[in-house]
Amino acid sequence: MATQSTPVEPGANLRVEVDRARKEADEPSSPFVRFGPDQPFRLDSGKQLDHLQIAYQTYGALNEERSNAIVICHALTGDQHVANEHPLTGKPGWWARMVGPGKPIDTDRYFVICPNVLGGCMGTTGPASTNPETGEINGLGLPLVTIADMVRAQVRLLDHLGIEKALAVVGGSMGGMQVLQWASAHPDRVFSAIPIACSARHSSQNIAFHEVGRQAVMADPDWRGGRYLDEGTRPRKGLAVARMAAHITYMSDKSLHTKFGRELQDREKPTFGFDADFQIESYLRHQGVTFVERFDANSYLYLTRAMDYFDIAAGHGGLLANAFKRETRFCVVSFTSDWLFPTEESRAVVRALITAGASVSFVEIETSGGHDAFLLNEPEMFDTIAGFLSAAASERGVR
Amino acid sequence: MATQSTPVEPGANLRVEVDRARKEADEPSSPFVRFGPDQPFRLDSGKQLDHLQIAYQTYGALNEERSNAIVICHALTGDQHVANEHPLTGKPGWWARMVGPGKPIDTDRYFVICPNVLGGCMGTTGPASTNPETGEINGLGLPLVTIADMVRAQVRLLDHLGIEKALAVVGGSMGGMQVLQWASAHPDRVFSAIPIACSARHSSQNIAFHEVGRQAVMADPDWRGGRYLDEGTRPRKGLAVARMAAHITYMSDKSLHTKFGRELQDREKPTFGFDADFQIESYLRHQGVTFVERFDANSYLYLTRAMDYFDIAAGHGGLLANAFKRETRFCVVSFTSDWLFPTEESRAVVRALITAGASVSFVEIETSGGHDAFLLNEPEMFDTIAGFLSAAASERGVR
Repeated sequence: MATQSTPVEPGANLRVEVDRARKEADEPSSPFVRFGPDQPFRLDSGKQLDHLQIAYQTYGALNEERSNAIVICHALTGDQHVANEHPLTGKPGWWARMVGPGKPIDTDRYFVICPNVLGGCMGTTGPASTNPETGEINGLGLPLVTIADMVRAQVRLLDHLGIEKALAVVGGSMGGMQVLQWASAHPDRVFSAIPIACSARHSSQNIAFHEVGRQAVMADPDWRGGRYLDEGTRPRKGLAVARMAAHITYMSDKSLHTKFGRELQDREKPTFGFDADFQIESYLRHQGVTFVERFDANSYLYLTRAMDYFDIAAGHGGLLANAFKRETRFCVVSFTSDWLFPTEESRAVVRALITAGASVSFVEIETSGGHDAFLLNEPEMFDTIAGFLSAAASERGVR
Repeated sequence: MATQSTPVEPGANLRVEVDRARKEADEPSSPFVRFGPDQPFRLDSGKQLDHLQIAYQTYGALNEERSNAIVICHALTGDQHVANEHPLTGKPGWWARMVGPGKPIDTDRYFVICPNVLGGCMGTTGPASTNPETGEINGLGLPLVTIADMVRAQVRLLDHLGIEKALAVVGGSMGGMQVLQWASAHPDRVFSAIPIACSARHSSQNIAFHEVGRQAVMADPDWRGGRYLDEGTRPRKGLAVARMAAHITYMSDKSLHTKFGRELQDREKPTFGFDADFQIESYLRHQGVTFVERFDANSYLYLTRAMDYFDIAAGHGGLLANAFKRETRFCVVSFTSDWLFPTEESRAVVRALITAGASVSFVEIETSGGHDAFLLNEPEMFDTIAGFLSAAASERGVR
């Protein structure tokens, strides 16, 4: 069946890509810790992991009182490389604007820890990791994980680092879900919490977009039923399509219009063909292609699934207010143009927190940046977070 | 390379599907007319078609004065089978609620014509059609077509049927774009126009979603560079993913929430797997699979591209008001929860029409139905259209 559209045979580049992906999953370019069968890790699915590796990055220094630690929870396609050059792409960290000396999350004052999430592909146990017992790549053999599982792995990391209570847990999108889960399930470990652009449960529309992405990945014959790394290939086209669809949901209609409008790409007239005539098309294709270089397709399946399953209230008789206690101070942040996690979702969280008697600040930031605004240059967000953290630190006696 | 995810060999069902698709494209289950090289059809791309076939459906009877004809323009994935059983799916017509005896578009009073669009796959010349000269399937050999090309083909059909001026041209979504194009380019042929849930130009976000769909189709190895019908296959997975992504954009967040919420599909607990755990997932998968049975993937590429290129103002010095004259009476309809073609787009059209001195009614209908509301049971839309048409008919002396 040799036709022009049969996938190309894995060439040199693809082999390099596969090798780098496997290397980063097993021997990450950041600190990591391994737990063995003496400390089995129980999952929400009822299964357990006899081997757990957690990769993480840190910035700044832990103070003597161990009271200045801030945990950053990354989003679906993020990782622990918050403020350093990314080991695969060479690009600056995804939150370099937020984290660093003199930045809103000031590493001169705080000790920042960002773990790669469970199910991820940058060194924490995930589908691309090799099982130390069998020497085989986990692939779909890894049990499904939940947001609560991710957070329990992070609690274990804090235990390992000797940190009893984080000064703050901060994150946007899937990171924000983890923040809510931290505060809900481990309130004694969280002094303050900053959930950004997130919700307490994944909506039907959110699940729908994720399902499209998963189907795009699984429709790619190079996915090989999830065994692509074993077979030395990667479902690049499918994952690129998934990323393209998702990327649209991260931006607002207005920001797409402002950024691209109907502008043509390096041409004066449309070509009357299927090339990327419009700038928005080449932009999206670029997003797809670059994503594939740094992300594992099975991880994408696992993490989207974890988000779909997320529904904090479900574990508390359907009442979100029951999910929270009053221990933690909250700063909830949403963005006006975020249609993936609209402000309404944050308001529901805020109402529940107030009902639970927690201390809550809530800021809805006016921006056209869409869901991705939490990654962008949003001065009001920076000021809000810097101010809230500083107050929390002072209250806790952090100098 | 035999692995579990290699596409299955074309089996009996696929052959039947391919044969039916080809039959419907060339010998449709509806009236059709063929034009030969003596009447070449010029396209916006500068190319021309020496053979043009137009398939269409009619309902009701043309009156003696030939003054009661209503042209219905169908949407991206619609066709001419407005109010009769669909020849491929056996389902009722897509606008059976709107068109028929005693219905808002009353076939006891009006003569309804719905042509399959140029580039379609139900009998009007499109990529799935066989070129009568070469005996080959057009595939990507067909030049790209525009909304203006589609409308010019429809004008030719009206000439053929001896109808000088339509009482009304009506359509939603891509159908609405055609309505605007009719009124703009052929004002002397249109007594009244009802553009629904559409806009005068495709937005950046609209183009983005279409590009995702096209990439999903073209990523499917069974697309075979567009030659799948020649090779007896169909890019079913890719087209299903494209449809799934598009379908989300046709519904509102609220309607998805009301219809599906986070309800599980025939189970009490999530399976911790990648099956369709949530009802929204099985619903979307079903949408994908059923679409593939009735629609041609290359047609999907051509028609999405035609929509992307649509920008009426661009041909009139960038001023939308210059695109319209005062001849035609307009009734513009939009829906509050339509985020694909938001009301704002309709307002821009209304403003331009007012500037042009045209007579305009504008109705924004309160509904959670999203973009697809024009296909749903929306009594206010029915009343609006019935009333507007009746007034137009009376004005024109149609009994």
